[in-house]
Amino acid sequence: MASLQCSPVYKTFIRQLSTQHRVLRNITVIHSPVLHKSFSSSSRTMTAEKILNGRNMNSQVRKAEYAVRGELAIRSETLKTELAKGAKLPFKRIVASLVEYPELLKDENAEAAAKFYPSDAIARAKLLLENIGSVGAYSHSQGIPHIRESVAKFISERDGYPADPSKIFLTQGASAGVQLTLEMIVSHNKVGVMIPIPQYPLYTATLAVLDANPVPYYLDESKEWGLTSKELQRAYDESNKMGIETRALVIINPGNPTGQCLTEDNMREIIEFCSKNKVILLADEVYQTNIYRPQDRPFHSFKKVLKSMGPKYEGFEMISYHSISKGMIGECGRRGGYFECEGLDEEVMEQIYKISSISLCPNVQGQIMVDLMVSPPKKGDPSYPLYKKEYDGIYNSLIERASILEKTFNSLEGCTCNSADGAMYLFPQIRLPAKAIAAAKAAGKQPDHFYCMAMLESTGVCMVAGSGFGQVEGTAHFRSTFLPQPELFDEFCSGIKNFHADFMNKYRD
Amino acid sequence: MASLQCSPVYKTFIRQLSTQHRVLRNITVIHSPVLHKSFSSSSRTMTAEKILNGRNMNSQVRKAEYAVRGELAIRSETLKTELAKGAKLPFKRIVASLVEYPELLKDENAEAAAKFYPSDAIARAKLLLENIGSVGAYSHSQGIPHIRESVAKFISERDGYPADPSKIFLTQGASAGVQLTLEMIVSHNKVGVMIPIPQYPLYTATLAVLDANPVPYYLDESKEWGLTSKELQRAYDESNKMGIETRALVIINPGNPTGQCLTEDNMREIIEFCSKNKVILLADEVYQTNIYRPQDRPFHSFKKVLKSMGPKYEGFEMISYHSISKGMIGECGRRGGYFECEGLDEEVMEQIYKISSISLCPNVQGQIMVDLMVSPPKKGDPSYPLYKKEYDGIYNSLIERASILEKTFNSLEGCTCNSADGAMYLFPQIRLPAKAIAAAKAAGKQPDHFYCMAMLESTGVCMVAGSGFGQVEGTAHFRSTFLPQPELFDEFCSGIKNFHADFMNKYRD
Repeated sequence: MASLQCSPVYKTFIRQLSTQHRVLRNITVIHSPVLHKSFSSSSRTMTAEKILNGRNMNSQVRKAEYAVRGELAIRSETLKTELAKGAKLPFKRIVASLVEYPELLKDENAEAAAKFYPSDAIARAKLLLENIGSVGAYSHSQGIPHIRESVAKFISERDGYPADPSKIFLTQGASAGVQLTLEMIVSHNKVGVMIPIPQYPLYTATLAVLDANPVPYYLDESKEWGLTSKELQRAYDESNKMGIETRALVIINPGNPTGQCLTEDNMREIIEFCSKNKVILLADEVYQTNIYRPQDRPFHSFKKVLKSMGPKYEGFEMISYHSISKGMIGECGRRGGYFECEGLDEEVMEQIYKISSISLCPNVQGQIMVDLMVSPPKKGDPSYPLYKKEYDGIYNSLIERASILEKTFNSLEGCTCNSADGAMYLFPQIRLPAKAIAAAKAAGKQPDHFYCMAMLESTGVCMVAGSGFGQVEGTAHFRSTFLPQPELFDEFCSGIKNFHADFMNKYRD
Repeated sequence: MASLQCSPVYKTFIRQLSTQHRVLRNITVIHSPVLHKSFSSSSRTMTAEKILNGRNMNSQVRKAEYAVRGELAIRSETLKTELAKGAKLPFKRIVASLVEYPELLKDENAEAAAKFYPSDAIARAKLLLENIGSVGAYSHSQGIPHIRESVAKFISERDGYPADPSKIFLTQGASAGVQLTLEMIVSHNKVGVMIPIPQYPLYTATLAVLDANPVPYYLDESKEWGLTSKELQRAYDESNKMGIETRALVIINPGNPTGQCLTEDNMREIIEFCSKNKVILLADEVYQTNIYRPQDRPFHSFKKVLKSMGPKYEGFEMISYHSISKGMIGECGRRGGYFECEGLDEEVMEQIYKISSISLCPNVQGQIMVDLMVSPPKKGDPSYPLYKKEYDGIYNSLIERASILEKTFNSLEGCTCNSADGAMYLFPQIRLPAKAIAAAKAAGKQPDHFYCMAMLESTGVCMVAGSGFGQVEGTAHFRSTFLPQPELFDEFCSGIKNFHADFMNKYRD
């Protein structure tokens, strides 16, 4: 999560960064006069007279907080960045280009098209168009059947257990899937949904809008953000005593913002917990290909672990989410993803379909990208060598950067950081001087937020404060991605080091 | 809203239809074993034991109805259709293709690219990429600033009054914008939102999910689906007496499913009504370019009419919606649109931004299509002649088909139909024999729904029953598009005629 100032170094850095990987949540547009004007040009004096105002609008909406796009992100949006223009991982881009302009696929244009387009990309585009028709038309509300079949094949091959296309819903990113399924589950304002602390703020924001109760369980920072069923049971029992009807458990694996990857044993424990307490498992597995210690901590899907547990768990209720925005492809601007339902009630499935249909269909280009994600070029395909080279390049670079950045954080005064098994983040803890905490208080900000704002102002780097994700009371953290490009990484790390030293010196007790 | 059987004529018809225009809401995939299996393969016997089931899920979700994707649509999804493979209106397709594969824009590829891509499309793709960066990256949550500026320019030129990019939010289709803004407005379960009857079912479905109260006002079928402020006041006052706090008024102009286009006088009356009763105006203007009697009934935006009413209405609260799914472009599968806020409270605007940010950003390809819609090729551009030819071709054909279909409906026994000033629908009234009504009752269906199901089974044509849109108690209607291609239109119309005659004969009293 980096953004930048006007310094040309950072401009280059950001451009490179975004070329390398397009998961740029908080890297956005400078001098966004458009946005800024928006909220200052309307006349303050009119406010009290408005039919709809801050006091009488939907209070659940007001309550929702969304840290990764909050004040910090808005501030970073006042800084300019030049986004990527390069075309990396061409296979998916080429296919996306071809399906837009099917003229290029016609026999009479074959020779000319072959100059730009490899034969496997042309074949894939033809196959997709045969199954989709036109990318401009509404599709099936649940997602294009052909693409759901591709997803089912991917899941079957990943897990070694069959998957059913009829249980798969294509979505506009995993976020849309999470929002839709939580909407199903929350039937009254005493419903509870267990979420990890720290968590990805999509969950608290959506639960706030739905007027439901987040039931927090804590990941243990001292044990590499580990998770125990004992802690799950504590959270469940405490909320139960308070009259909360806990109906679902969110697990983010690999973790966001914490980067841990669960072991199979741990996952079995979680499934047992859910089964015992009659809790639906919501498995956010969007970082399943971002695995950095594949020997020690490989990714296991909850679906696979569940199926390996035998007939005792037949009918277990679970929804798992995946996305095109992460992994090595990172096509986040396209808004594509899917969720797979396991063991859900038939009527609930019908209702999920109905609600999906109110929004007509997920955007077709996003659906196509899901197909390309679950079914990339294979050995022997003309596009394979380049695909493989770029995939491995990004992957190895992420591993390297995760390690360098972790070392950087651990070298900072008062800072400790667990390593990342997966995902794209580190979540270091910082111990801030009392003077800094007092200064934050005086500015009406959380200490970690105050620290991150100072970093943004001083370096252009936008970290997201830990308070937006949740953390143990009295601690301070921030989330950092490790996306910046290797050749600029030293500069990125030294920028953080210098800022941190200056900050600590300024507020030293 | 046509779908088709297995007859080769209808196959051709549908293929043509979808080539001609991609607004194919209810034309989808045959033998959708995927979907069908979905809701029958889970074990009925498990239902009662499920943690989440039809009885304990969110009851607001259950209450939502969505006719245009309801039983009829699901049934039509069991019939096969081959969707379009042709590339009509190439300009937007070409630009969409180029932004996916920026390699083609490089100088060294200029000569080869020029074979496929006209120079204005290349220039536009370059401009867009300069402003967007990569189509794969998250954009500004409110929408790409450059594209919001294009939209503001379009609105200013359309209305003759300035528009502010900071008040414009890009969305994934108009539906997403409507859902988001209604969510802002509904703060408790006594909030009312005025909706026309007949209405587009997005409104009732969304209000049901939000647990708000639709406050119906009736369009007068005997006066070409006219609207009076007297009827608005009646609806408002009656709901007021019932303790409903009516906060917003939805106007669909041109009408869906009714096709009428409001006069300026009528619009002023509506604005006065809103102002007097402190009601926010929600103007659904997605059919603004589908205007078929431009001399008698031109389209006026509510924004323009409001601004023409002078300073008395300064601060008037209004949101207007537009979409790429309609008009002559009909790019519905891409999910793109925008809404413009007028006079909204500053804090409400901030909250709209926050909620938009929870879903990160609208899909970038949909945003690009909004840019192409509001800023099409201009006279003198290389792409202009083809663009103009295709635009006019579709437009003239729609006018012609609207007229033929209206005559067809008016020629049917017991059927009357108003003409369409705009949009893409006719909404004829049918007077069904008592025997047919009794047969419908016996089948547990609304009479109009029963009629439409019979038409679907017999002809493959999928009309949507009037009960899904709302109609005066005891009347029966259905909605028909006039999208089918001219050369197949005679066959389409005679299919309807034959079916109707058979149906009436079968159930004649």
